[in-house]
Amino acid sequence: MVQTQNSVIIALDAMGGDNAPDAVMHAAELVLQKQTGVSFLIFGNQSKLEPYLQQLPNLREHSTIMHTDSTVSADEKVSSALRQGKNSSMQLAINAVKEGKAHSVVSGGNTGALMAMSKLGFRMLPGIDRPAILSRIPTIRGRSALLDCGANVDCTAEHLFQFAIMGDAYARAVMDVEKPLIGILNVGSEELKGSDVVKQAAEMIRSSSVPLNFYGFVEGTDILSGTVDVVITDGFTGNVALKTMEGTAKMLSHNLRSALERNWMSKLGALLLRNSLIKMSRTMDPRYHNGAMMIGLNGVAVKSHGSADKVAFAQAIGNAIALARNGVNQRIIAEMRAYHDFVHKNENTVETSAAPL
Amino acid sequence: MVQTQNSVIIALDAMGGDNAPDAVMHAAELVLQKQTGVSFLIFGNQSKLEPYLQQLPNLREHSTIMHTDSTVSADEKVSSALRQGKNSSMQLAINAVKEGKAHSVVSGGNTGALMAMSKLGFRMLPGIDRPAILSRIPTIRGRSALLDCGANVDCTAEHLFQFAIMGDAYARAVMDVEKPLIGILNVGSEELKGSDVVKQAAEMIRSSSVPLNFYGFVEGTDILSGTVDVVITDGFTGNVALKTMEGTAKMLSHNLRSALERNWMSKLGALLLRNSLIKMSRTMDPRYHNGAMMIGLNGVAVKSHGSADKVAFAQAIGNAIALARNGVNQRIIAEMRAYHDFVHKNENTVETSAAPL
Repeated sequence: MVQTQNSVIIALDAMGGDNAPDAVMHAAELVLQKQTGVSFLIFGNQSKLEPYLQQLPNLREHSTIMHTDSTVSADEKVSSALRQGKNSSMQLAINAVKEGKAHSVVSGGNTGALMAMSKLGFRMLPGIDRPAILSRIPTIRGRSALLDCGANVDCTAEHLFQFAIMGDAYARAVMDVEKPLIGILNVGSEELKGSDVVKQAAEMIRSSSVPLNFYGFVEGTDILSGTVDVVITDGFTGNVALKTMEGTAKMLSHNLRSALERNWMSKLGALLLRNSLIKMSRTMDPRYHNGAMMIGLNGVAVKSHGSADKVAFAQAIGNAIALARNGVNQRIIAEMRAYHDFVHKNENTVETSAAPL
Repeated sequence: MVQTQNSVIIALDAMGGDNAPDAVMHAAELVLQKQTGVSFLIFGNQSKLEPYLQQLPNLREHSTIMHTDSTVSADEKVSSALRQGKNSSMQLAINAVKEGKAHSVVSGGNTGALMAMSKLGFRMLPGIDRPAILSRIPTIRGRSALLDCGANVDCTAEHLFQFAIMGDAYARAVMDVEKPLIGILNVGSEELKGSDVVKQAAEMIRSSSVPLNFYGFVEGTDILSGTVDVVITDGFTGNVALKTMEGTAKMLSHNLRSALERNWMSKLGALLLRNSLIKMSRTMDPRYHNGAMMIGLNGVAVKSHGSADKVAFAQAIGNAIALARNGVNQRIIAEMRAYHDFVHKNENTVETSAAPL
């Protein structure tokens, strides 16, 4: 049966995020209303979670509550979360994936803690040095993937190169793009501009044995125009870019709202535009783009925005299901293997030809 | 007479930018229609510029054309522009300021060339190591200053500290803010997050003798929410942030336009909203925020967006006039002097107390 083959178990950290556990429980129910072959392991305080199962019939049927009292708080330091959070809902949900009891984990909790716990729990994929946070961005043409959105504030060219391979694998596996176009974020598209790191990374991609479809450098304007399918950058710049988009969108909707409410004529106009504006806001609403993948790990962890409501959290769960089903990690492993075979071959050549000192 | 005291001469590179010289000449006329006490030295091809003076009566009266055949092209390499552009309209306009014949220069040409020529021509202000590109950003609360927007891709903590002093002086002198609130762009507002460079820069500002009103770290979302008056960052991140705003705004207006044209009802709604939307777009229209200052130089150079039309270029000229009138550079010099006196005093203390080896 196809359904059985594709059946997916998702581990949920029910206690992470501003609206937990309410948003998490209702989100899981929303997902079950639309998808078959999905079940949940829900980690959190049983006495707080049980009442939801009374109201949510699908969830009652397709989930198991795994009780724990311990949680990681949003502002807890990573070191403290690692020491004191061994029995936290976040850690136990990660363990479930590590132990093969679930296919992927979703949490709306502390980003730093989720990254550190996932890294320790899952370890890196072979050939990958650092995990990255990959976010999907709505563009004029559709969607693109931006990484790293904040896992690594300092990156070498080698890291950026590995991000390119991971982004490529992601776009092929999850975004259904056959030959994803990849760009490196820079201050200008001319080859001479930019930092040494981005120039070296571009050179590594161009001369690599991995057949990446490399566009070259892109600028901030290109992220949302959809010039490329995958935008590569360090975690500092990527995080600033992501949050600048958020801030810009917030300011523009604030201004639009004021414009719609200016006088009776604009209010009437707004009424006529209601359906059309709702459709527009759905395209841009960050809730529908929620759920960043912690990519590069030997296990699938999805981070939901801390402020996610049930609609947004359901989107993050949807991403976790898609990631579990489409084997993005297998693709990364294959691409990295091809790359390392090539590097290894070249290193051997150098060793053989080098004269002894 | 006040008008005579405040009279300002602006050197215009009439040949720089996609719409030059048309946009430049009409922009200058627009400015003259609104302001008194302004005159122009216009550098460019006389046979191309003269015809404009026939149509533009104010400009004819208040400008002098300084002929040159040579121009710097938009895609010319900086090294080539410096070598071959000695008689270019851009270089001659800069020379006019250097020689005291004009108060500030405005160009819509090649950014790299303008920065390099201004740096060589004007030299740095005492105590400042690197110039920065300062852009004004519309925010929910008003306006803020963002620097560096692209002059320096790699920055040390000392550079960021100097940007903070320059941004402070700018906000006091040009934005009329008494105690400008200053933030350093980072990936999170918690003190522990971020790169070593931003952490060190924050420490330098906190422990400095210059009384800066330091907010701490800000994130990408804060740039447009107006959390602070001045946002400090390196030229790589600043450029990406600026262009990401541009891209986001472009996508949102694209989506809004589609929403307004969806069907007859939305078209009618759009008609009713017309005035209100025009007012809104004026707040956000990048044309009204055009004109970035090359700050840190011993002379005032303003860079207009290459694609500026006459309205946008007039805004850049307006900025150049304001900068000439309000003495931002004198403030920077005073603040840097106070800082260096302090550092010097402390260095002496260390020298005295240090035991000989």
